[in-house]
Parts: sequence; structure tokens; C-alpha cells
Amino acid sequence: MRGAVMHGPGDVRVEERDPPRILEATDAIIRVSAACVCGSDLWPYRGIEEPEWPAPMGHEYAGIVEEVGEEVETVKPGQFVVGSFWASDNTCAICRAGYQSACVNRVPMGALGAQAELLRVPLADGTLLATPDLPADDLIPSMLAASDVLGTSWFGAVAAEAGPGKTVAVVGDGAVGLHAVLAARQLGAERIIAMSRHESRQRLAREYGATDIVEERGEDGVANVKELTNGLGAHSVVEAVGTQESMMQAVHSTRPGGHVGFVGVGHGVALPGMELFWSLVHLHGGPAPVRRFLPELIDLIWNRRIDPGKVFDLELPLEQAAAGYEAMDQRRAIKVLLRP
Amino acid sequence: MRGAVMHGPGDVRVEERDPPRILEATDAIIRVSAACVCGSDLWPYRGIEEPEWPAPMGHEYAGIVEEVGEEVETVKPGQFVVGSFWASDNTCAICRAGYQSACVNRVPMGALGAQAELLRVPLADGTLLATPDLPADDLIPSMLAASDVLGTSWFGAVAAEAGPGKTVAVVGDGAVGLHAVLAARQLGAERIIAMSRHESRQRLAREYGATDIVEERGEDGVANVKELTNGLGAHSVVEAVGTQESMMQAVHSTRPGGHVGFVGVGHGVALPGMELFWSLVHLHGGPAPVRRFLPELIDLIWNRRIDPGKVFDLELPLEQAAAGYEAMDQRRAIKVLLRP
Repeated sequence: MRGAVMHGPGDVRVEERDPPRILEATDAIIRVSAACVCGSDLWPYRGIEEPEWPAPMGHEYAGIVEEVGEEVETVKPGQFVVGSFWASDNTCAICRAGYQSACVNRVPMGALGAQAELLRVPLADGTLLATPDLPADDLIPSMLAASDVLGTSWFGAVAAEAGPGKTVAVVGDGAVGLHAVLAARQLGAERIIAMSRHESRQRLAREYGATDIVEERGEDGVANVKELTNGLGAHSVVEAVGTQESMMQAVHSTRPGGHVGFVGVGHGVALPGMELFWSLVHLHGGPAPVRRFLPELIDLIWNRRIDPGKVFDLELPLEQAAAGYEAMDQRRAIKVLLRP
Repeated sequence: MRGAVMHGPGDVRVEERDPPRILEATDAIIRVSAACVCGSDLWPYRGIEEPEWPAPMGHEYAGIVEEVGEEVETVKPGQFVVGSFWASDNTCAICRAGYQSACVNRVPMGALGAQAELLRVPLADGTLLATPDLPADDLIPSMLAASDVLGTSWFGAVAAEAGPGKTVAVVGDGAVGLHAVLAARQLGAERIIAMSRHESRQRLAREYGATDIVEERGEDGVANVKELTNGLGAHSVVEAVGTQESMMQAVHSTRPGGHVGFVGVGHGVALPGMELFWSLVHLHGGPAPVRRFLPELIDLIWNRRIDPGKVFDLELPLEQAAAGYEAMDQRRAIKVLLRP
């Protein structure tokens, strides 16, 4: 089968890979309907992370079940399913507390390579969720989005305690930041400040529910958020970048007692203890437990109440994965969808 | 009047100071019944913080109201009152959200010097709370404790979401750590792990409700907490020290999705972003909004349901404040009470 493999920074190739097969009785094999390139895929692409090369790529996926292991009970061949980027048993104490991304038996889907025709999904019962029926083709991008980017944003907004009566600021206007705006709106936030200086992204942010745009970054951006909030800062801030600057921008934009939900993967970030102490903010984040939110997200998408698929502004056949990485790297595309 | 003044690291003197007087219509003057030496007073004593010398000392206090400004409505001369180490209006949006220590009009009591015979308390209505009647003398140490150390610990335990069904670990066996054990017990925690290697402090920890003691520090201590919690870590961890080691010990002792409440003042602490990301813990802390908890704490003390005063294992007349600082610095005393 065909699959995307990274051979080193900037070097993505689509090549023949051994088709996956059932290894454990709890596995499923799915035929991938759509996969995509994640912001976090750019870390190795840019040489900031060094996985073992060559590395099969991709951890966001939706598709049709081909085959299941003999212990799989909740999904069956022919169903359209959405999974998360961590396979989880969904039964351990950590999963039951809603943190499936830290399941004691978790398996990283990234190592299995979802940018491919076929994908093995471990712990299928705890990882995959089937849609009520086969989705219309135009729903597939949104279903795909639920498997990581939307789920990640949702977690960020929940971690930031976005909700009725709250002013929410979002740091970052990539796909995760834009979906965080959408999530904050769905969660009932009163006011949503998108921090973005790209006109096209501002437009989508407004479409998703942003009420205010702040173009400035860093401490200038913070000053703007404060000005919009009686000098206090936002109740809730979602951090969706993962740099030192964005993290401090998020902390400083939050009022005392407010909540920062951070979902950017913080490479090289070091949070000064005294600043955190005096800020009196709540800080929560990490790899999103997408599985916690999948039932709700699939329902919202199935009933066309949200349209997260709009963040995909470039769709390519899997064979052109390299061009997709390039477009994301150069920020010519917000998010690239790959069709095997 | 007499008051303690620090003239430089290690140099505490009790000397004549100008008696305070009403400066604002919202002020009160109280005659201090008891004050104490805070762990945070040791930062300048050890030269780690450099205030402007000479510095009047003390921010924990309880006493009898002598005089009030003309706008003060809720306390009156003759009442016994307890305050917090931040004066707060208790009416701004931040106060109403329960973060009085970040009140938009806050005044640091430390600058006013509570280790003295008389003390000016700004924003008296929003800062002070009167007891139902004059307390018995043996209740005074506990009432004093409510003004900072107990309130700080209580905030740490609340920030860590200690409660029924939870396993709570406490990093630090100073007065704040010991009171965090007491707070966790009062909040209904099922299991409380005190991390301490001092026999006398372990004994008080057990008296306050600790069910387990872990003597090891750092990663060995973490391994012990994990062993006591099926390998998962505690649900809730209170950090009550403020060093890099204690902070990481707290983060690493917490299970994914769990809560760290940190109340140690983190001098020189830098939290690695990636570790925080992958830990999936909630982090909340800072200067405790003691005022939020005062009504409950005073009630518990008044009705003799808790005895936080036990942490005072050395009581000295104010004139001997220097000896009190020395005993705390050398860890010969857990907490020193000063009687003006």
C-alpha cells in the first residue's frame, strides 16, 4: 500500500509500505478516507524534533473499517469511524477520568502512519467511534478534523473553562486556534478575542464566532486584551502555538483566577515560577484526550451544527503529501487534507 | 510603639516605630494580639529577596480593633478581628471571583509591619472579619494561623481539588504543608500522603490527618507516591516549599488529569514546558486569597473543630523577635508566634 514516510527534515516521500494486519485481538484495520498534516508534523519536518528515520507519518484519520480482531465489539467492518491520535483502552482509571491521551495502555498513532491507504488501530473499542451511518462526502473533512485538530482545540477551550459569561482569548490562528474559537462559541462564551494578523484567518475566525480581533503579538497583544476587558484580562485563554512568547502571551492575557488552556506543544518553553505564582492563573493542557469529546463532536458534525472542515484550505491526493507539508511549512495553507 | 524591623539579612531588631494612624476613611487600626514569623519572611532574612532596608516586618495578625475610619461599616472598636496578608476591597470583579489576593485595589500588609503593637489595616471592610465574640486565649494562635498560614494551605488544598475519594500528597512539612494535611482532611480527602523526613513533623501530620508518610524526596519520593497509588500518582498534590525540586516533585507525583496546588513562593523556579505538557496535570497557585476562606476558617476554629494553632511550637514576646527568626531559619521551630 502507499503511505507517506519522512526520511529526514524536509524530506517526505509517498512510497510502498507493508499493508498493516491485525496483530492483537483488539486491533482494527481501517481504509483511510482522509488523513491530514498536523502542525506537530512540522516539528520533525523542520528538524526541531528528531524521530527515528525513516518515520511513517500521520496521526489524524477517519475511514471505513476493513477488518477487526476477534475481541473487538463496538465497531465492525463497513462502518465509518473516527479515532484519536492516541489509541486508548477507555477503561483504565485515567481514561475513566477523561484523560484517554494518558491511558495506561496508550499507543501513539503517529508511529503507525495514518497518511496511508490502510491503518492499524490498536485498542479499537476504546479508540474508534462509528458515525450513525456512512457520512455524506462533504462531511468527511469535518469528521477527520474531529480526530485531532478540533478535538485538541475543544480540549484547549474546556481546559480554559470557556463558557457562558466568559471572555475567551485565543493565542494562535492556525487550525487549532481557529477551532478553539469555534469551540469557545459552542461552549457558550460571551466574547471571543482571536489573536491573528492574517486577514484570511481573521475572516474564518469571525465566521467561527470571534467577536474581536487583536493583531498585536506579545506584550502589545496582552495590552490590547486588557484594554478590551476593563484592564483585567480574559477569563479564559487558549494557547495554540507552543512557543515561549505565545505561552507568556497567554498567561499575561489571563486575569487572576482565570484559566489558560494550552495545547501548543511547548518546545523549549520554560515557565518562570514567580510569574506563574503572581499571575494566579490556572494552567492546564497537554496532548488532548480527544476520545473524551468524540461522541459530542461527531454528533455536532453529523447534525451539521458545526463545520470544522473549513480549516482545510488545501486538498491533495496522498501521492502529493510532500507538497502538502511544504504548503503548511510556508503557511500558504492553514491545514492540508490528504485523500489516499 | 514597638515593632520588628529588618535592617538587612539576618538583622532583625525590635525598636520604636511611629504608631500608625487612620490615613484613609476605609482604614482600621488594630492592637495586635498575636503576630508571627512567616516562611516567606525568611527569604529576605536569608538575603534571597532584597526589600528596601530597613523593612518593617510581619503580615500575619489578629487583634482588637482600636479605631476605624469613618467609612468602615463591618467592624468596630473592641471587636477581635482576623485579616489577610493582602488588604482587599472584596467588591471588585477579581475579589468577587474569589481572588482577593489580586484585588485591583490590594495593599500588601507586609509593607505595614504586623509584628508590632499596632497595625493599620487598609480597606478594613474588605479585609477584616470579626469573631462572634472575644475568643478564649487558647484560640488566639489558631485565629492568627487563619490570617496566612492556614489560609494559604487551605487555598493549596482547594487549588489541588482535594476532596472525597481523592488521594492527596503534600510536598513540604513546614507549617503550610502541615496545615495542608489538615485542610485536605477537612475537605474530605480519602488518603493523605505527607512527604516529610522529620519525626516531630510526621507526628503532627498524622495528628492532622495524614494516612501515609513518604520520607524520600525528589524522584525517590515520586516513586513512593506512585507505589502507593497503583502506579498512577496522587489525584491532588499540594506544593508547599517553592523550590525547583519541590515543584517538579509535585508535578511528577500527580496523575494525568490530576491537580497541583502550589503555594510555595517559587524563587528561581522554571517549569519545563514539555514536561508540563506531557504531565497533563492542572496547575494552580500563587498568593492565597485568604479572605475567601476566612468565614469558614474562623467558624471551624471558633467551634474548635480544627486546631491549626498547634503548628506554633515556639512562643516569644515581640521583643525577642530576632530569636524567633533565628529558630525558624535553623528549623528549630516549625512556626513562631510573637506576643506584642
